[in-house]
Amino acid sequence: MSSPNEILQAALDYRFGDERRLQRALTHRSAAHDNNERLEFLGDALLNLVVADVVFHEYPKLPEGDLSRLRAALVRESSLAAIARTLALSEHLHLGAGELRSGGFRRDSILADALEALIGAVLLDGGYEAARALCLRLLKTPLAALPDPSQLKDSKTRLQEFLQARSRPLPEYQIITEEGPAHRRHFAVNCKLIDHDLHSVGEGSSRKLAEQRAAQQLLDLLERAPRAIAGEGKLDHA
Amino acid sequence: MSSPNEILQAALDYRFGDERRLQRALTHRSAAHDNNERLEFLGDALLNLVVADVVFHEYPKLPEGDLSRLRAALVRESSLAAIARTLALSEHLHLGAGELRSGGFRRDSILADALEALIGAVLLDGGYEAARALCLRLLKTPLAALPDPSQLKDSKTRLQEFLQARSRPLPEYQIITEEGPAHRRHFAVNCKLIDHDLHSVGEGSSRKLAEQRAAQQLLDLLERAPRAIAGEGKLDHA
Repeated sequence: MSSPNEILQAALDYRFGDERRLQRALTHRSAAHDNNERLEFLGDALLNLVVADVVFHEYPKLPEGDLSRLRAALVRESSLAAIARTLALSEHLHLGAGELRSGGFRRDSILADALEALIGAVLLDGGYEAARALCLRLLKTPLAALPDPSQLKDSKTRLQEFLQARSRPLPEYQIITEEGPAHRRHFAVNCKLIDHDLHSVGEGSSRKLAEQRAAQQLLDLLERAPRAIAGEGKLDHA
Repeated sequence: MSSPNEILQAALDYRFGDERRLQRALTHRSAAHDNNERLEFLGDALLNLVVADVVFHEYPKLPEGDLSRLRAALVRESSLAAIARTLALSEHLHLGAGELRSGGFRRDSILADALEALIGAVLLDGGYEAARALCLRLLKTPLAALPDPSQLKDSKTRLQEFLQARSRPLPEYQIITEEGPAHRRHFAVNCKLIDHDLHSVGEGSSRKLAEQRAAQQLLDLLERAPRAIAGEGKLDHA
């Protein structure tokens, strides 16, 4: 019979030098003072780097904003929780009585945090290369399913779709500066919601590039605070 | 006579195998389509990992929230811009005409971004260990000046100071659940602004821990949106 620890290490394809690190990574803060929150901090940073590195190389022409969004989709809580479920991580978690009763082992946040803590524990236990390899194994399926670069929509299109989905009029783009010699032209474009006091400015070496950047900025703003264009924008409780 | 490239590489204590990466890291988006934004994305991720790793080891008992805040202070734009200035990075930047005229080479954001791009370029050129070593060299002074763990204020104290500085009444803490056997007690505490409809909940194995977490959550909320307690909280332009 294999112990739970052995089963999980086999699933991770990593054997801990010090199994206390594995235990700590599996311990939710509801169960003990010595829990996985610090390891999660470390694992989150490593995972972000590994995924940044993958999308950077996978999409050699993609602008930074799109790389960020691709990464965010890969490492978001629900994605990580799904991976944790393939490892049956919930069976290995140590939770406090309250969390146990309320089914905390099924919660995305607890599963995703534990997965990141496991990555942090491997970084601590086996070093950078071991932890990087673990990240790549864990994310093998979503990384293999990354969209083709040509299918990624540009920012103006995404902003348009975002507004249309909310029955809002399309934004207006307006050049605010255009300067520099012909071979080194510089543009600044204002992107404005016509029914709302919200705008953004994008710059670039062409009008098109400046418009895309302005659209992206506005989209970032709207996605951070979707209620803004519903006319509210008041801070909500976490 | 040394070339500018050689001077900068000497200052970084890193010699590029492919100097085009160095040039790209120094190229602001106002100057060329082939600019440093993607490298900045990569460098930012590496820097965040390296600093996470340092504070994790430097402060073995510090909760995750405090580690995050320490890191944020080390990698914030103004801190990185200060480091870029010690390298005289502004003399090496490639900026578009508009940015040149408006003194973009003095701007914190442009300097900090270029520094992160340099880190990304070294990751690409020399691999993880070389880039990690560069981060540690660049941050040597601030890392040597990290506060003593015992001097770090706890979250309740910081929340109190935050509110007092704004002439606001102190928050109220209230236990909302207390359960579990004596050796494995679980507490949930509500932290509430008495003059504002804003509250947060913290959990933990002791009342004190739960209060600290609740205070921290509220502080995070307030720091993300300082206008909330000024009674506004409306989304502002970026």
